[in-house]
Amino acid sequence: MPDDEHRIDERLIRKINAYLEKNRDPSTPVTNLLDPEELRSRLDLTLPEGGCSLDDLYRVIDEYLEHAVRTGHPQYFNQLWSGFTLPGFLGEVITGLTNTSMYTYEVAPVATLMEMELVQRMGRLAGFEDPEGLFLTGGSNGNLQAMMIARNRALPEVKHAGFTRDARLAAFVSEEAHYSFEKAANILGLGMERVIKVGTDEAGRMLPEDLEQKIEDSRAAGLRPFFVGATAGTTVKGAFDPCERIVPLARRHGLWFHVDGSLGGTALLSPRHRHLLDGLEQADSFVWNAHKLMGLPLICSVFLVREKGRLLASNSVDGADYIFHDDGHGASDLGPLSLQCGRRPDALKLWLSWKYYGDTGYAERVDRFFDLAAYAEEIVRDTEELELMAPRSSVTVCFRYRTPGIEDLNAFNLRLRRELARSGRSLVNYGFLGEDMAIRLVIANHELTREDVELFFRNVLSAAESLLNPS
Amino acid sequence: MPDDEHRIDERLIRKINAYLEKNRDPSTPVTNLLDPEELRSRLDLTLPEGGCSLDDLYRVIDEYLEHAVRTGHPQYFNQLWSGFTLPGFLGEVITGLTNTSMYTYEVAPVATLMEMELVQRMGRLAGFEDPEGLFLTGGSNGNLQAMMIARNRALPEVKHAGFTRDARLAAFVSEEAHYSFEKAANILGLGMERVIKVGTDEAGRMLPEDLEQKIEDSRAAGLRPFFVGATAGTTVKGAFDPCERIVPLARRHGLWFHVDGSLGGTALLSPRHRHLLDGLEQADSFVWNAHKLMGLPLICSVFLVREKGRLLASNSVDGADYIFHDDGHGASDLGPLSLQCGRRPDALKLWLSWKYYGDTGYAERVDRFFDLAAYAEEIVRDTEELELMAPRSSVTVCFRYRTPGIEDLNAFNLRLRRELARSGRSLVNYGFLGEDMAIRLVIANHELTREDVELFFRNVLSAAESLLNPS
Repeated sequence: MPDDEHRIDERLIRKINAYLEKNRDPSTPVTNLLDPEELRSRLDLTLPEGGCSLDDLYRVIDEYLEHAVRTGHPQYFNQLWSGFTLPGFLGEVITGLTNTSMYTYEVAPVATLMEMELVQRMGRLAGFEDPEGLFLTGGSNGNLQAMMIARNRALPEVKHAGFTRDARLAAFVSEEAHYSFEKAANILGLGMERVIKVGTDEAGRMLPEDLEQKIEDSRAAGLRPFFVGATAGTTVKGAFDPCERIVPLARRHGLWFHVDGSLGGTALLSPRHRHLLDGLEQADSFVWNAHKLMGLPLICSVFLVREKGRLLASNSVDGADYIFHDDGHGASDLGPLSLQCGRRPDALKLWLSWKYYGDTGYAERVDRFFDLAAYAEEIVRDTEELELMAPRSSVTVCFRYRTPGIEDLNAFNLRLRRELARSGRSLVNYGFLGEDMAIRLVIANHELTREDVELFFRNVLSAAESLLNPS
Repeated sequence: MPDDEHRIDERLIRKINAYLEKNRDPSTPVTNLLDPEELRSRLDLTLPEGGCSLDDLYRVIDEYLEHAVRTGHPQYFNQLWSGFTLPGFLGEVITGLTNTSMYTYEVAPVATLMEMELVQRMGRLAGFEDPEGLFLTGGSNGNLQAMMIARNRALPEVKHAGFTRDARLAAFVSEEAHYSFEKAANILGLGMERVIKVGTDEAGRMLPEDLEQKIEDSRAAGLRPFFVGATAGTTVKGAFDPCERIVPLARRHGLWFHVDGSLGGTALLSPRHRHLLDGLEQADSFVWNAHKLMGLPLICSVFLVREKGRLLASNSVDGADYIFHDDGHGASDLGPLSLQCGRRPDALKLWLSWKYYGDTGYAERVDRFFDLAAYAEEIVRDTEELELMAPRSSVTVCFRYRTPGIEDLNAFNLRLRRELARSGRSLVNYGFLGEDMAIRLVIANHELTREDVELFFRNVLSAAESLLNPS
């Protein structure tokens, strides 16, 4: 093998630094959005018979970088994650360099210890005294895992014998909860219809009275309630369901109480905002995506269980003795806890980031996110053409553009949002609140300033202007 | 934010190159294996309140690198993947730099087109004319996905209403198949007992006669066969189930026919060895881990379905309109196909590797793996103290050390394998073939030479010698 396959040359560093430099140049478009057919025609999407040179390979990388959406750009607001962080990136680089899998301590000794420490640390932040947990492949996977433990607790025979009758299990989440709960009900054989939607208040928080009513109604209909999933930071409105008020209901009705903190789990790091999760300490399980507000590259998601042993009991399987050995360090193998076999060491990047920013760095970050979101809300309230579509709970602000002359507000705001993306000035997503389309601004980039937020709204207003008065 | 958080400095390159350089130095131990308690005492496993400097962060990285198992070292044979490849590593670096998610074309335009192309290319290699597919989180996840599609086809009501009765579905895999099929049966509510194990021949290949018998027995017992999972490259013996002979049975009995090619899918790239998968073109689904024999960093796993539409019908869900929009490029969004929401762009690293090595590079690699494994088998056969534990099918060789004086062969070979690891000379794993422990040599590192294989066996013999005659 040629020597240059065993060393990284200067080009890579130059490309990385040039890319990062451009992220910070305000004239750089956040995206250069092309239709799939147009983009296809500009790329070489063939795979060669004979391979290519390293020079050619770097040209493919250049092409990728040219058309990549700049998720580290201060005008990227499209998802619940955003921004570039050095320790997170270094974590990915070292993870790629030392390529290994989390199933056994033997092949991932340091990452295993880091993951165990992080599970303890994050579990204790959630208020779990002696938590069980592991990193998995995202919030959807965490919600699935929670519902699976709950199912296997409610129906102990299912693990080995399967469903032997119509168990008529019913799960409860709010109407603002993530679609992954229904996906999980499909996967687990519970049926998507058995996920019952609980009403919310105007801010998007689950109504405990309605939860109680729905539980009783479902019992009356012959269903067996077994699971309630609260959300800490809903996808569109960023709302926090009132865990403290859900706990007693879950207890009284014998439900597994899971909290989906994919977005909002990070609020635990802020002494000012952690009260939003009060009651979490009495939940049974919790998922928290560090790749959202903690600024890690995707995927970095931790799943936590309050009562140790529940996760292992739900997931364990025989026939894995080729990999999990009783001799040696078997007791430190994380594999038996996991629904995956091979698994990336996602703990490393989080470890490096936490070391670098520390508790206080993260606390400040969370507070800054909330403050900036409050500032964005204020701008919306103070701007005649903008309408706040829901009270703000955390880091997202839902709004739309409206002036008296616009007949179809949904159609107009869809065009407005597309125009922003097409111009490359700001990339922001949207959702529907009932029938109404709302632009969803998410504050998730740790480098964001008030000026960036102001620029975003200037871009919105000028895009609207250009749509209303095309020159 | 300080400027040095927006550029990579020379240190990173120096560290990467020094690490890679050491991988190639024969005196470098492949692992520096410590008990968890010992390792814990040597590391700083605290997370600080106040953060740390970039210099301190690099010290944490140094510590990680010092204790990382060298999976790119030529004496690392522990798993079904091994070795360092430059394009794979560059793919991970660029993936980390441009951090995005595969749910929508809008935020991952190039990676979406690459993934679509790879699905078509790999699907056609499998013999699927117009395949559906996507990248998922590993072979276990692929086996789950296959079984879920099959379940939802067999019981169309399950997706929405759940199991309304004891469906008594039965799945069939060989006794050498991966444990993830049972894990999937647990997740899906089928029950682990409903995974029926089919006998194998001495080489580890499923016996079609026994499959037929087991199908008939299970019908007689009131079960409803719905799924058969063949393995292309079993975990311990590397055996290929005879797909061609399983196809007619699957057809006759109306079973979904899935092939787990996590290990052996890569044989499709070799004109010399692809016959091992003859019959695959008539399978219903297929999973292939590019992170094994194609040399990509974990995870890189593609799932393929022969009949377009099956995957989407099984997985789709309502309530995702906040992310998958009808306007714009919705038709190019891969998210609705996936059981994940956020998903890493694992296609990029495979794209770069395929560009760099080309079809011919990969064909040569596969052939070299098989040739080296044949050479290893030959050494085992020619060495009096070594016993071949199963006929070799592909890239793994199962053997043990035996001399007349050793009473407990399992105990001795376990010690032998631990001694090899402890010395840092070679890291190799093992499995059980019935009651007998076998050391499993896996040829998966693209840079391996005959000398590396010879050195491995010299290490085995000298470790055995030192155990038998401690000085």
